[in-house]
Amino acid sequence: MPEPDFDLRVCDSAITLAFSVLGKRWNGMILGVLGSGSASFVGLRKAVSGISDTVLADRLVELVEAGLVRRDVTDGPPVSVSYELTRAGAELVPTIEQLGAWAQRNLHPQKSSSPATR
Amino acid sequence: MPEPDFDLRVCDSAITLAFSVLGKRWNGMILGVLGSGSASFVGLRKAVSGISDTVLADRLVELVEAGLVRRDVTDGPPVSVSYELTRAGAELVPTIEQLGAWAQRNLHPQKSSSPATR
Repeated sequence: MPEPDFDLRVCDSAITLAFSVLGKRWNGMILGVLGSGSASFVGLRKAVSGISDTVLADRLVELVEAGLVRRDVTDGPPVSVSYELTRAGAELVPTIEQLGAWAQRNLHPQKSSSPATR
Repeated sequence: MPEPDFDLRVCDSAITLAFSVLGKRWNGMILGVLGSGSASFVGLRKAVSGISDTVLADRLVELVEAGLVRRDVTDGPPVSVSYELTRAGAELVPTIEQLGAWAQRNLHPQKSSSPATR
């Protein structure tokens, strides 16, 4: 029997869908930052350490298109643009916080090897 | 006042840590599949649609090093290798399922534009 039962499994389509957004670098962090309130582009770039202007701009377009972030333009002068979570985005925040709590308990930055995991 | 208060924000370090693993393509799906039981390499590759052998192998090494997945080798012949979640990996499964439930409510594959999000 070369193919055991578990070869018939497929990744849950809802989980696949979730990670089509969250499995993309930076998206979880951007949503996490917006979870504490609206932010300007510059504010986001500073809050998400390491992201470039180009990548942040791309990610924001995608998150707006996915219906998770709203881009608000306030008439000027000066014109002001800010980003905030939609209802769908805000609904994700408690789960993102759970992920953070889990990471704090279980992950270690630049984790060194341990006998149990090698 | 060119820099409002929110420019002082930084992404929560725990959330950053969580997405250092989960913000990498495929990792959430691999963990989601292993959430329903151990799997062989071939079983995982079939369950995570679209992943290549090389990328799956790389991801498994990383997930083992992060302490979330265990590689079990059973003496043969034939030698059998399977992958399963560690305690830390298993602890993440309910949250991954929540992400799936959220995605099902809020995301749509190839979502078309809607007035509210543009």
